[in-house]
Amino acid sequence: MKKKSDNNFTPLSSLGEFGLIDHLTKKFQLSHKTSIKGVGDDAAVLNYGNKYAVITTDMLTEGVHFNLVYTPLKHLGYKAVVVNLSDIYAMNAIPMQITVSVAVSAKFSVEHMEELYGGIKLACDKYNIDLIGGDTTSSFTGLTICITAIGEVNKEKITYRSGAKINDIICVSGNLGGAYMGLQLLERERSLFEKNKVEKPDFGPYSYILERQLKPEARKDIIALLNDNGIQPSSMIDISDGLSSELLHICKASNTGCSIYEEKIPINNETAKMAEEFNIPPLTAALNGGEDYELLFTIPLTYYERISLISDLSIIGHITKEYLGCRLILKSGDEAKLSAQGWNAMKS
Amino acid sequence: MKKKSDNNFTPLSSLGEFGLIDHLTKKFQLSHKTSIKGVGDDAAVLNYGNKYAVITTDMLTEGVHFNLVYTPLKHLGYKAVVVNLSDIYAMNAIPMQITVSVAVSAKFSVEHMEELYGGIKLACDKYNIDLIGGDTTSSFTGLTICITAIGEVNKEKITYRSGAKINDIICVSGNLGGAYMGLQLLERERSLFEKNKVEKPDFGPYSYILERQLKPEARKDIIALLNDNGIQPSSMIDISDGLSSELLHICKASNTGCSIYEEKIPINNETAKMAEEFNIPPLTAALNGGEDYELLFTIPLTYYERISLISDLSIIGHITKEYLGCRLILKSGDEAKLSAQGWNAMKS
Repeated sequence: MKKKSDNNFTPLSSLGEFGLIDHLTKKFQLSHKTSIKGVGDDAAVLNYGNKYAVITTDMLTEGVHFNLVYTPLKHLGYKAVVVNLSDIYAMNAIPMQITVSVAVSAKFSVEHMEELYGGIKLACDKYNIDLIGGDTTSSFTGLTICITAIGEVNKEKITYRSGAKINDIICVSGNLGGAYMGLQLLERERSLFEKNKVEKPDFGPYSYILERQLKPEARKDIIALLNDNGIQPSSMIDISDGLSSELLHICKASNTGCSIYEEKIPINNETAKMAEEFNIPPLTAALNGGEDYELLFTIPLTYYERISLISDLSIIGHITKEYLGCRLILKSGDEAKLSAQGWNAMKS
Repeated sequence: MKKKSDNNFTPLSSLGEFGLIDHLTKKFQLSHKTSIKGVGDDAAVLNYGNKYAVITTDMLTEGVHFNLVYTPLKHLGYKAVVVNLSDIYAMNAIPMQITVSVAVSAKFSVEHMEELYGGIKLACDKYNIDLIGGDTTSSFTGLTICITAIGEVNKEKITYRSGAKINDIICVSGNLGGAYMGLQLLERERSLFEKNKVEKPDFGPYSYILERQLKPEARKDIIALLNDNGIQPSSMIDISDGLSSELLHICKASNTGCSIYEEKIPINNETAKMAEEFNIPPLTAALNGGEDYELLFTIPLTYYERISLISDLSIIGHITKEYLGCRLILKSGDEAKLSAQGWNAMKS
């Protein structure tokens, strides 16, 4: 499994992010009755009386997860909250509280921190979240943000990655690949700007994909609509690493396969146009681009009529037996095997 | 309040760590019924049915909180857990779960991470903690660890900083200043080692203070003894920033003053000897040295007899009216005003 490097140490990139977490946490066992679910879903689940508490945490580091050249600190604060809330919604739960830890180097001022916390406050106000704690400390280099979000859910509503059943319908909210193409655009303009210092970046008519990248939203509305329509998903995950990667997580956890259809995958026009400018097939951006923060979930066929009434949802395929694998049916009629080439923060 | 620098930005160091957190979070309000206590104590408190959940988070950054030149990764993992558990015990609660987020640069290998997680596992085993989640990601520079700990407590047992009453006895567990003197020793030997590469560091007979710095413990035993003896503290805090700083937190939150006695402050012989080598008054190390992770708490006078039966506890003074201020009675009979000059991770 491991590939040793010359100095006899195994580089982190050889395991990848998920492989590394699995490897490091496999010896840990849950011992408390209150610990219902540990590592391996969008959030951990704790049993508190008549409800479950769900808890998730995410760390964002400068240069890896964000570039301050084109990321306003207010947007960064907003996004750092939203990505955690998205994980809570993906458990079919309602986020209630966050803690925020920030490490900053001396290049940051009080005014910079006010901008960052201004964005955090905007997100807290919009999603009705209480900031209940945190930590502010120094770093020798750059900015690191670690947010923990806590939510709650009635026990019968909790939704794991592992509940998908054969013949369940696969649904996805919104559209895919936009955040990734927004990132490509920002990176291109940054690169041009650094070469010819005088010119202003030209973002043209691409405000939608820029917003997808810089100020994403978590799908609070979809969770509310599922609840209002009495639809209990059998499995759910949020799309932070690309559709392929997330669908493989669901199928692996559920011991199933899946078939999804190219023609059903929702791609925004602006995303498709930008992808063409970059000579990237729009399908690739949708399958492997990260950070869309849409919800991917499965539901029993019996909910088919009810789900059709909810707008901004696409039915993209169905769950199959495990031995059939995870397949993408192309418009041409050909089939491809889904593979996770998505965003991976551990790859070197 | 703020001191602007030349470029019209206010340096973070002008507010200090606590001032900065206060400044950034003052606009945030708690809106959920479950949010009992937010920013401003050792941990946040959430109301779940018949118990409270308490939650705390701490971020440690390389070069600020630890130096990998003399900190084995296994010790670092252990300590990163323990410092969070200490905050949970300081609420009179029992820690149950942690999440661990780690950002590492490419200079770290899988083997390094195994060492770090080995230390995390040791602490989890010793304190009976479930690892329930986390995040592993890249950084461009060095190592950052952010741990969130979750505990629980019967509602009537929760202990805040704010409950100290006039005439309450002030107690402290263990002894103080050892971790700080351990750090001074490590820094001296590092500095000598860097000058003359060949010599081995000489730690002499100072194993106790080195352990206090590199592998501190949280006072699980004291919380159990208080419980077994039916003692409910009126206020409590853990000593991470030095006795002075923590006592000022309690008095500020409780609107009281205090008198403590130099002769009562517990200082280990090894700590005192090392302090003398460095020409630091041992009292200064005890008052302002950080990272002891002992518990500082107040109890009503009625518990005096019961508390006297518990070993490894010192009664160091009593709570007074607020207008009398926070005073240290010296062995000479003179009085000094307590001030927080302790460890401050935001100071430049």
